[in-house]
Amino acid sequence: MTDRTGLELRSLITSAGELTLSLEEVAVPDPGPGKVVVRIEASPLNPSDLGLLLGPADLSGMKASGTADRPVLTAPVPEGRLKHVAARLDQSMPVGNEGAGTVIAAGEGAEGLMGKRVAMLGGSMYAQYRTLPAAACLPLPDGATAAEGASAFVNPLTALSMVETMRAEGHKALIHTAAASNLGQMLNRICLADGVKLVNIVRKPEQAEILRGIGAEYICDSSDPDFEAKLADAIEATGATIAFDAIGGGKLAGQILAAMETALSKGMEYSRYGSSVRKQVYIYGSLDLGPTIIDRSFGLSWATGGYLLTNFLAAASPEVRDRMRNRVAAELTTTFASHYAGELSLAEALDPATVETYQRKATGVKYLITPAKGL
Amino acid sequence: MTDRTGLELRSLITSAGELTLSLEEVAVPDPGPGKVVVRIEASPLNPSDLGLLLGPADLSGMKASGTADRPVLTAPVPEGRLKHVAARLDQSMPVGNEGAGTVIAAGEGAEGLMGKRVAMLGGSMYAQYRTLPAAACLPLPDGATAAEGASAFVNPLTALSMVETMRAEGHKALIHTAAASNLGQMLNRICLADGVKLVNIVRKPEQAEILRGIGAEYICDSSDPDFEAKLADAIEATGATIAFDAIGGGKLAGQILAAMETALSKGMEYSRYGSSVRKQVYIYGSLDLGPTIIDRSFGLSWATGGYLLTNFLAAASPEVRDRMRNRVAAELTTTFASHYAGELSLAEALDPATVETYQRKATGVKYLITPAKGL
Repeated sequence: MTDRTGLELRSLITSAGELTLSLEEVAVPDPGPGKVVVRIEASPLNPSDLGLLLGPADLSGMKASGTADRPVLTAPVPEGRLKHVAARLDQSMPVGNEGAGTVIAAGEGAEGLMGKRVAMLGGSMYAQYRTLPAAACLPLPDGATAAEGASAFVNPLTALSMVETMRAEGHKALIHTAAASNLGQMLNRICLADGVKLVNIVRKPEQAEILRGIGAEYICDSSDPDFEAKLADAIEATGATIAFDAIGGGKLAGQILAAMETALSKGMEYSRYGSSVRKQVYIYGSLDLGPTIIDRSFGLSWATGGYLLTNFLAAASPEVRDRMRNRVAAELTTTFASHYAGELSLAEALDPATVETYQRKATGVKYLITPAKGL
Repeated sequence: MTDRTGLELRSLITSAGELTLSLEEVAVPDPGPGKVVVRIEASPLNPSDLGLLLGPADLSGMKASGTADRPVLTAPVPEGRLKHVAARLDQSMPVGNEGAGTVIAAGEGAEGLMGKRVAMLGGSMYAQYRTLPAAACLPLPDGATAAEGASAFVNPLTALSMVETMRAEGHKALIHTAAASNLGQMLNRICLADGVKLVNIVRKPEQAEILRGIGAEYICDSSDPDFEAKLADAIEATGATIAFDAIGGGKLAGQILAAMETALSKGMEYSRYGSSVRKQVYIYGSLDLGPTIIDRSFGLSWATGGYLLTNFLAAASPEVRDRMRNRVAAELTTTFASHYAGELSLAEALDPATVETYQRKATGVKYLITPAKGL
């Protein structure tokens, strides 16, 4: 038995309207049967983590306090936004969906993982140590670094689930927005390997360049004045009738549906209800937190809605889940390779200037938290 | 063989941006095998007809011309709206989804319908005569008037399909907007008979009064300052997680999803992804043609999209379709009774003041076109 403790990053929003990020010393339970303790070496700052980490705080009001070893960051949360986080108010929340590290203790039945480097999914990863079930760990190939294994779940499984969903719902090609992201690049490599046609929507010419460099064929830049016409052309060429949108806010989801309808209507007899082909846009991210604005100009055979990997996996058959996990393990450093702009210690992750950088979620500016360093 | 001709209402939008409504003399084909000719006696002006009839014309610029017997109505269509009707430009379109009338000629195998009063679905009903397959006719009970049979398809089948969809998708109660409409009243009678809980959303106190009068239990007025809280309470009381929205534009669909989430979140542990219960809003009408504005404050387990009876029927089993049609036939003058503000001849339907009245789609102001009268 040990009395191990470790630092854990916590996010707290009070009902008085203040966000506080801090590092708390927490007990690390010894591993019971089937469990392991992992020393966490790398954990990505994914957009899905930032929502929990920063909430709807007004970051222009960030203030640093505390000490170098135990920094504290505070920021005001405007009163009008508190209702969106009512269910988490006044609770100190651990953060970090996924990560990688080394097993330093193993309970009964999990001894085979002792000393192994593993990837993990399960929350509370912005911490020095994590006790969790062996089944939540994916052993990494020999020689793989923690950085290579840090993003083995969220992005790879989400990208694979998009292709699975496309097939399961009877579509034959797909559309992806924010397409130059780490996830977008994985999706391009999957689609190229599998012969699936993919329309990539980006917001800047340099993002188009990244995608051309990895062999993407269909790229539409939403900053192009002819964006809607070019998107309709790409949809006509590919037959894409399903899209996965990381942006969420603004008019993009509606523009995609309208472009699908334009492509489907060519040569079709007029129907006041539009084409009868189902047009689907799934919103899986909120890079734009503003409202989704859908200008309904495309008949009645359309759908949009939220998309969450967890829901997909809960509904998927064990065969589908195994197929996805096995492919990630086999292609971790190729198809599913991620790129990071840098590494941050737990303390560095609370520095206001650093927060300002990573909260922008800009393409190519994803950071890894490396809790084993610098503390 | 006859050389029968009859008047038919036509709607034309030119690529130059003008809407023209007129009455055209068209040939009425003799009935081939399995077909009948019906003298049309009543056909409702449903919201779904108005979209085709008036398109996106600017009705403040309506002008009457022609003669008393052959009136013509024109109105400008703003250039920016022409793209929404690109597929119908420069085509003279017949209008009118459904109606009722008397069979005046019958082809081989359809002789049994001769002289019978029938309800019909099939388009081109704003006309004196219609040749159509006997299978598209529903014989009315003895003594039923044409007015009683005129709305035997669109509203009754749509209302029934909502309850069928609710059950098929695993929901246990439902929400309906514009709930005091003819369709909304039918839905209340269906739900009361079947023991299904229904949350009615209306926009005015007098609409709430109509619904209370027919026994509705849950009524929320969107003009009430406490609307969102009361809607969440009604959702909590009923467990409704699916809504059918006739409005389409504005914030209502998002408000419904937010109220569902409020009801579902009570006592639940916080999840940044919201409750995992699927929340569905189907948009089946566009009483507000503006964009749908969805403020995503309710996690990722939500969906919205278009809803069309035709798509439902195409996907439904023959047993479901038969069950629905048989119920409509049996309860036509009770559950499925409609109310009309008045009757219009084909010529009267083209009068600008009359158009101005019916295009508002106000509750209790639905008109019947009676093509057999007044010409």
